[in-house]
Amino acid sequence: MSNTPTDPPILSHLDESGQVRMVDVSSKAPSQRTAIAEGLVRMSATAYKLLSAQQNAKGEVLNTARVAGVLAAKRCAELIPLCHGLPLSFVGIEFFPDDANHSIAVKTTCRTDYKTGVEMEAMMACSVAALTIYDMCKAADKGIVIEHIRLRYKSGGKSGEWHND
Amino acid sequence: MSNTPTDPPILSHLDESGQVRMVDVSSKAPSQRTAIAEGLVRMSATAYKLLSAQQNAKGEVLNTARVAGVLAAKRCAELIPLCHGLPLSFVGIEFFPDDANHSIAVKTTCRTDYKTGVEMEAMMACSVAALTIYDMCKAADKGIVIEHIRLRYKSGGKSGEWHND
Amino acid sequence: MSNTPTDPPILSHLDESGQVRMVDVSSKAPSQRTAIAEGLVRMSATAYKLLSAQQNAKGEVLNTARVAGVLAAKRCAELIPLCHGLPLSFVGIEFFPDDANHSIAVKTTCRTDYKTGVEMEAMMACSVAALTIYDMCKAADKGIVIEHIRLRYKSGGKSGEWHND
Amino acid sequence: MSNTPTDPPILSHLDESGQVRMVDVSSKAPSQRTAIAEGLVRMSATAYKLLSAQQNAKGEVLNTARVAGVLAAKRCAELIPLCHGLPLSFVGIEFFPDDANHSIAVKTTCRTDYKTGVEMEAMMACSVAALTIYDMCKAADKGIVIEHIRLRYKSGGKSGEWHND
Amino acid sequence: MSNTPTDPPILSHLDESGQVRMVDVSSKAPSQRTAIAEGLVRMSATAYKLLSAQQNAKGEVLNTARVAGVLAAKRCAELIPLCHGLPLSFVGIEFFPDDANHSIAVKTTCRTDYKTGVEMEAMMACSVAALTIYDMCKAADKGIVIEHIRLRYKSGGKSGEWHND
Amino acid sequence: MSNTPTDPPILSHLDESGQVRMVDVSSKAPSQRTAIAEGLVRMSATAYKLLSAQQNAKGEVLNTARVAGVLAAKRCAELIPLCHGLPLSFVGIEFFPDDANHSIAVKTTCRTDYKTGVEMEAMMACSVAALTIYDMCKAADKGIVIEHIRLRYKSGGKSGEWHND
Repeated sequence: MSNTPTDPPILSHLDESGQVRMVDVSSKAPSQRTAIAEGLVRMSATAYKLLSAQQNAKGEVLNTARVAGVLAAKRCAELIPLCHGLPLSFVGIEFFPDDANHSIAVKTTCRTDYKTGVEMEAMMACSVAALTIYDMCKAADKGIVIEHIRLRYKSGGKSGEWHND
Repeated sequence: MSNTPTDPPILSHLDESGQVRMVDVSSKAPSQRTAIAEGLVRMSATAYKLLSAQQNAKGEVLNTARVAGVLAAKRCAELIPLCHGLPLSFVGIEFFPDDANHSIAVKTTCRTDYKTGVEMEAMMACSVAALTIYDMCKAADKGIVIEHIRLRYKSGGKSGEWHND
Repeated sequence: MSNTPTDPPILSHLDESGQVRMVDVSSKAPSQRTAIAEGLVRMSATAYKLLSAQQNAKGEVLNTARVAGVLAAKRCAELIPLCHGLPLSFVGIEFFPDDANHSIAVKTTCRTDYKTGVEMEAMMACSVAALTIYDMCKAADKGIVIEHIRLRYKSGGKSGEWHND
Repeated sequence: MSNTPTDPPILSHLDESGQVRMVDVSSKAPSQRTAIAEGLVRMSATAYKLLSAQQNAKGEVLNTARVAGVLAAKRCAELIPLCHGLPLSFVGIEFFPDDANHSIAVKTTCRTDYKTGVEMEAMMACSVAALTIYDMCKAADKGIVIEHIRLRYKSGGKSGEWHND
Repeated sequence: MSNTPTDPPILSHLDESGQVRMVDVSSKAPSQRTAIAEGLVRMSATAYKLLSAQQNAKGEVLNTARVAGVLAAKRCAELIPLCHGLPLSFVGIEFFPDDANHSIAVKTTCRTDYKTGVEMEAMMACSVAALTIYDMCKAADKGIVIEHIRLRYKSGGKSGEWHND
Repeated sequence: MSNTPTDPPILSHLDESGQVRMVDVSSKAPSQRTAIAEGLVRMSATAYKLLSAQQNAKGEVLNTARVAGVLAAKRCAELIPLCHGLPLSFVGIEFFPDDANHSIAVKTTCRTDYKTGVEMEAMMACSVAALTIYDMCKAADKGIVIEHIRLRYKSGGKSGEWHND
């Protein structure tokens, strides 16, 4: 992530002898950084219908998943070994239910003004929000699939804006 | 998960008034339980090649992801709000690199002899192992996608064996 | 808690030399145990009204507080130094809004079938649920007060049932 | 908390559609911030006397509660879903035993020089210190009550000084 | 740890292909298990004297270290990757100050009645208690050394009693 | 640590009344800070040989210990009661196996640009990396000893450079 566009890509978490270490960000300047991640929870028609049929269900399930996602973003560095801990200035989680395909898209946005990016925080929030939906619907469909967790956007830092469309 | 095959499916984490609560497992008997989850990390050819080209890289990356996955399985109940804490008797994580498609399949197996299943632990271990691979390779490819996180198998408890092929 | 009714009360977390230690529960038998705790969040009329006036507000605030309370119950032993870690078989959190007094009563129920009681888990869940309500309403009223956190009921173990009316 | 004195109060943790999210503090300037919270642990005369009668008891109980409170302040953002993680520059916890009313007042002070306030950290430290006293004295009195957890003072940030007398 | 006395020793955390995994304890029977660990904190005469000279110092420092050690024992499986989470039935920490050598010996005892041993919990409690003493005395002596952290005793399980004298 | 060279040494974590509190760093300026800690894991010849004899063993064991050490550095403030949480800009862990003495030296380097030092983070990383080696080799030698955990170097802050040779 610290390589300029013309550097050959490298696995930045390995040192010269090929062993893992945290990337040293001592000399990096802080900047406003944003990352957006997305994923998809695809379930059976039956499970999807319960979310609407059972009183209050969709609201409670999605709020619970949203809270879980926000909390997971804040604890990302405890779970991803070489991730830097950083102060998040924003975490937002949106859900886009798709009735036709009985799926729920998850979109997470994280922001910091620190020296490293918040890609992992956004990816972690997205994964844990999706897993929480799985957990709360698995009694109706154990075969729910979590699809296409990926980074959609990042800005800030030396490498600037990046889109994944 | 406590419904018998003939019960209509329900969202078991909501009570009669539609509000979230942990499922009460007080009266359930412990049994030997296993869950297996799978997922796929799909990256660019360039990033995939670095795993082989850089000295030692694949071993270090996969070991780190394995350790992260095992640790995440143990902390699953801290992250998934309505998940019961339980003593894991086994966590194993396997990786299957696919050179042709420059992807790595992740397969996680969890076991307990407690009153509730270990599906969420296996799904969490799989997600966090995949996210760790993403983190360690994202300097070479920010667009890595995590695909098809899903449960493959569970056994134990009242509902017995379940396969997802 | 291990004293019989005729023992003089003691501070069980201090050893003979007056120093803290976990109570040794090696020789205690597991039993079904329940604990119920209660507390009260009392806020200004203005803050209370916002919970009803802003679209969706009460549901989101209380669901968030419920999730926070359940998660805190599961992590009680990380926070209360001499508390035993134990597997919770149930955590439920109920809210009773009182329009006349613009307050919300919090009632938490925890269950285990382990060797020690779940009083602290119920008290912790109640406190953190109340603090979460405070956090989400403090923009409207910084002076919200959390009142009367206390144990209402416990059952199980050698000392059996106990009511606090 | 970001409203100026003339804004109508709002529940700042809900977005326009009424769903929870972290408040975005990206554009806020850091400032020296202090928060002071207070609460009261009220116990039976019998339990209170044990604190003085048993050798060393009061010191050990209060030191343990102090340590628990400091640790809880540091982990506040893990427990309160929409609370920002922040670096604490100070946490202090004082106890004021009141022999006449067999109660112990708890006063906690937190400081940061970050973009958001430390009210929740002070309230959390106060609650967990009080709960730890409860835990260590509950063998002598299960009916101990935690009273009047509330914010007493805050300074720093746009809203400046605030007293609650 | 599951090898009988005549098995050749192995590194039990590596599978047949030489990769890490948790040891599978599914088929092991629970038993009463104890582990005792010891270590030594050796400091300068100056630092050691402050513990006695400053009012209250030794009690506060050692109580704080004791609380830190107990809490660390409970979180051992979060820190040691392949360690099983287990319910601790007892954690006790003793300190033996040695005025002549200005050192403090740390002795920790852990107990469980689970399927795996509590050696790591005892070793972790000992290390973190020692590190806490270091932290609290380092203003007076940054060169404090933590010596001889080791297991002294274990009992329970298939391998039975083991002494390290 | 805030005393100038001519101040008499004090136990900075105790206030005037001899009770623990976090040191107030509100008025300290951030600076680039580094700390290096070292320790030694000494094992039997048999256990040490297994690290080389079993396929892949040394790499897997040391990578696992390295990951555990990095993660522990990031969570230091959760474990050491009066330690300030801070953003680590670097954590690196090196191992130096010594075939002649069948021991492994552990050297950890931590960096921050915050207001307090990273000594405790380096010491914690060193201890947990050593404990992880113990855990993974204890099936072959329960008597492994962790020796000489100590600070080797620190720089940054008012007290500047410090060497421990």
